[in-house]
Amino acid sequence: MRSLRVGLAQIDATVGDLDGNTRKILEYIDRARSLDVDLVAFPELAITGYPPEDLLLKPSFITENMRKLREIADQVRDIAAVVGFVDAADDIFNAAAILCNGEVVGVYHKMFLPNYGVFDEDRYFRAGHEYPVYVVNGCTVGVNICEDIWYPGGPTRVQAASGAEVIVNINGSPWHIGKREIREKMLATRARDSAVIVCYDNMVGGQDELVFDGDGLIFDQRGNLVVRGKSFAEDLIVADLDIEAVFRSRLHDPRQRKEFLAVRREIGTLPCPAVCSQYSHRAMSLLPKRQVESYDPLAEIYAALVLGTKDYIWKNGFRKVLIGLSGGIDSSLTAVIATDALGPDNVIGVSMPSRYSSPGSRDDARQLANNLGIRLLTIPIEPAFKASLEMLSDAFAGTEPNVAEENLQARIRGNILMALSNKFGWLVLTTGNKSEMATGYSTLYGDMAGGFAVIKDVPKTLVYQLAEYRNAKGPEPVIPASVIAKEPSAELRPNQRDVDSLPPYGILDQILEYYVEEDRSFEEIVGMGYDEAIVKRVISMVDGSEYKRRQAPPGIKITPRAFGRDRRLPITSRFRPN
Amino acid sequence: MRSLRVGLAQIDATVGDLDGNTRKILEYIDRARSLDVDLVAFPELAITGYPPEDLLLKPSFITENMRKLREIADQVRDIAAVVGFVDAADDIFNAAAILCNGEVVGVYHKMFLPNYGVFDEDRYFRAGHEYPVYVVNGCTVGVNICEDIWYPGGPTRVQAASGAEVIVNINGSPWHIGKREIREKMLATRARDSAVIVCYDNMVGGQDELVFDGDGLIFDQRGNLVVRGKSFAEDLIVADLDIEAVFRSRLHDPRQRKEFLAVRREIGTLPCPAVCSQYSHRAMSLLPKRQVESYDPLAEIYAALVLGTKDYIWKNGFRKVLIGLSGGIDSSLTAVIATDALGPDNVIGVSMPSRYSSPGSRDDARQLANNLGIRLLTIPIEPAFKASLEMLSDAFAGTEPNVAEENLQARIRGNILMALSNKFGWLVLTTGNKSEMATGYSTLYGDMAGGFAVIKDVPKTLVYQLAEYRNAKGPEPVIPASVIAKEPSAELRPNQRDVDSLPPYGILDQILEYYVEEDRSFEEIVGMGYDEAIVKRVISMVDGSEYKRRQAPPGIKITPRAFGRDRRLPITSRFRPN
Repeated sequence: MRSLRVGLAQIDATVGDLDGNTRKILEYIDRARSLDVDLVAFPELAITGYPPEDLLLKPSFITENMRKLREIADQVRDIAAVVGFVDAADDIFNAAAILCNGEVVGVYHKMFLPNYGVFDEDRYFRAGHEYPVYVVNGCTVGVNICEDIWYPGGPTRVQAASGAEVIVNINGSPWHIGKREIREKMLATRARDSAVIVCYDNMVGGQDELVFDGDGLIFDQRGNLVVRGKSFAEDLIVADLDIEAVFRSRLHDPRQRKEFLAVRREIGTLPCPAVCSQYSHRAMSLLPKRQVESYDPLAEIYAALVLGTKDYIWKNGFRKVLIGLSGGIDSSLTAVIATDALGPDNVIGVSMPSRYSSPGSRDDARQLANNLGIRLLTIPIEPAFKASLEMLSDAFAGTEPNVAEENLQARIRGNILMALSNKFGWLVLTTGNKSEMATGYSTLYGDMAGGFAVIKDVPKTLVYQLAEYRNAKGPEPVIPASVIAKEPSAELRPNQRDVDSLPPYGILDQILEYYVEEDRSFEEIVGMGYDEAIVKRVISMVDGSEYKRRQAPPGIKITPRAFGRDRRLPITSRFRPN
Repeated sequence: MRSLRVGLAQIDATVGDLDGNTRKILEYIDRARSLDVDLVAFPELAITGYPPEDLLLKPSFITENMRKLREIADQVRDIAAVVGFVDAADDIFNAAAILCNGEVVGVYHKMFLPNYGVFDEDRYFRAGHEYPVYVVNGCTVGVNICEDIWYPGGPTRVQAASGAEVIVNINGSPWHIGKREIREKMLATRARDSAVIVCYDNMVGGQDELVFDGDGLIFDQRGNLVVRGKSFAEDLIVADLDIEAVFRSRLHDPRQRKEFLAVRREIGTLPCPAVCSQYSHRAMSLLPKRQVESYDPLAEIYAALVLGTKDYIWKNGFRKVLIGLSGGIDSSLTAVIATDALGPDNVIGVSMPSRYSSPGSRDDARQLANNLGIRLLTIPIEPAFKASLEMLSDAFAGTEPNVAEENLQARIRGNILMALSNKFGWLVLTTGNKSEMATGYSTLYGDMAGGFAVIKDVPKTLVYQLAEYRNAKGPEPVIPASVIAKEPSAELRPNQRDVDSLPPYGILDQILEYYVEEDRSFEEIVGMGYDEAIVKRVISMVDGSEYKRRQAPPGIKITPRAFGRDRRLPITSRFRPN
């Protein structure tokens, strides 16, 4: 029986770390070889990390990446490997090299360059126009890259018609809620449509706003899921592919044979398979079938936040983080995620009570720190608040207290956090959620001051769900019940409550989803039954807060449309709902 | 003699202000009609403002813009008009409508979509593929848009070969230093290459990071400059084009006739001119030739900064600005620009001396405010600084003073400025220059706190030149001589000097130009004769400050490559010079 043992290496590459990424690729090649793998695949742009953004405009970066590819090729013996890199050939291409016998035996250039959402690939790359296929140990393989496989008429179809029995699709595909289902459905369809085995390899890890989930997949030629790799963790997925079954399947499917004929008529000459490896087939018994990893929606989101945080901190050379703990749900969840990501020794909480802080809030912060086993500093802000009010008393003479006095407190806290950060080299994590980021219910340079915004893309209602999820996960609940139960308040003036300034979060988050993620108009949202005045106010808050968001630290994208590179609105804009 | 009277309306449109832009377009159409203009042109996306960014993903925005186009068309009678708008026809296009007799008689779709530098047009638009030409009052006219004319093989060539005697090229072309020369050389070449009169109309005004210069141009068919519009000001450029001369020129140029034949062979069927206006020719005498506006490099930069500042403030609904005046050159220049932009009544200076401020600096701030006639508040920061140090004394016990204590002061100042801003609704202008932004020699949430960064893209050496320029311009010098003469210092610790932390600005700015604007490598810059250790340190400062720049307010792009949307580097990156 003809079979191919593939290895899908879902590695956590770091952008710009050409040495480190190369070292990791070589290690995984060794591991794959020791498991008698015929063909091992690495993610899109594995050598450079993804996305390298304007590093791609530095000639020295391109050259160095080409040097690394040759270094890797040299080590690829008695196995074949597919490695993502930047190919420089008259222009630059998002490319996959097929390596074998110490040589680069082929290069595929990505044909479909995404230039929407968080992607800017037209800014950098020229698109490919060739559909090569390769024979690896007697099996015909087509290689393509990420976006390519999303197009029904793309290279997968042509490569299959040219004889490819296996498609290796390598990815730097960022995760968001709901993407997994769409992706798996699409891949199953591609596999069945072309009666081809689809091997989907994906990057894992955090890169600035993005987090890659790994979640490598293999679908057989009937579109059945064969294996799913780990989520949000590195993995080497090894599986034996039943190649005979592909031929059998095609023979028995007249629709398939007509489809391939149609491709031949459209494309003209189809590419000829190039034999790229024909090493003596190892005597080996088939692997036991690996279990398909399961997943749970909240667990997935939580894991994304943990990995995104860990990678941002570590990849940027930090070890410890600092979090202002107000006793509220947002800072509590942020601290728990940080502790799960970095360990309790690497998280420092700071309680900074003011004259308006309730005793309950102070207790809750203390309790949370105890539960997590993290260090807690307590620095009341009254002295600086009092001094600042006095300094401003002349200028403020005759005015009523307003947001100025409230923000003063938040900014004194930001100043304290940053002073500790500057003194000890701890990175400050901010604690604002997406509902706040959307409406601007936050203080620029105050609670928005910090290096990374862990839950920036988590709507408030989801913050609660994640807190409950994490408490239930145990072993013990970590977030005090009173934190979850109490009414949200910024505590910047007496008896302040979020609902004084915002609609209830249940309604707010729905309107935000329609307006921010789906770009629906005022009329449409009102048409769904929401109160006109509320919708108008929410839209106006969102539109009016663009300047704040522009100065916010990056945070992890978890929704289909996050603030940041995903949603690029002008600050100066007079477009308003009627 | 056959002639065409064209009007180039270089208007200051506001992004999203569909009502206001439409009103302005209609006013200019009236003005043009009263001057017997045959054809009046408006800039690229004049109805929506440029660039609208992700507003283009809102269906209601597109629909509203189409409605405005019809509203304008209805008013275009006894004149023809070219108006930039977003065309929705199965997909969306960056388009120019040709309006006449109350109708939309034709639509051109931009063919070349820029997707580099500050541009993201592939994110939004589908490219056009047709080359229409129109007959306006007996003269054949080709219309195309911005980037289109930069391609020697683009629509200008095909339209000329199809009979166009005049090309109307409408633009939203952002200004930067040196662009004018490149643009004028290119346009002269296009005109001469196709023996066609080129009318270049450009947007004017500030939009977030960008400033558009206007500077409308007409080149005759020999490539001679006929007229140049105002720089950084609205204008209606009216000129009589000698159309007979085009035909004469083509008849006498055998190379031209062969070139047009070549186009015909390449393209196949050339478009047929559509007669779009044939109103009775008004009896009119030719206009006297308008003088070509001249310009001066420093005046141009200064005007760009003034207009960019004014438009950001006004278009965002502010009237007054607040500036922390340290007595240094950066804050002084910023205050002068703001005063020139908004008038002295709308600029408030705040002097916030600390225990480390020299008496000279306090005097200089006061003198500057006097010279400008602006209000000056004085708020010493010692009380808050003292209180903060005491609050941190436990946490800081046993540590040496470092950048933490320095930044505390800058952040207290930021807090004071923001408190005044929140209390009175004044926008805070930040005062950092490009050399500081590049090296991170600035305090996040401190001197970087504010809504707009006027001189963010001005290197320190150019800051001095602009200060001298403005003082020389008079009537009286406004920046005290001592401000220009004194050694740069942040005054955050005793006897601090910029040169303790940075290379001399003369050298620093050159290295920054090579590294930031030209993406040259470490080896290349060292190869030019710069000290290896200095180059390494500068590159490392630039690379390590990406996180700060990401949280900086927007500022006006004046160099070929500004920080911001023009240079998109990851924060997380391990790529380093060896």
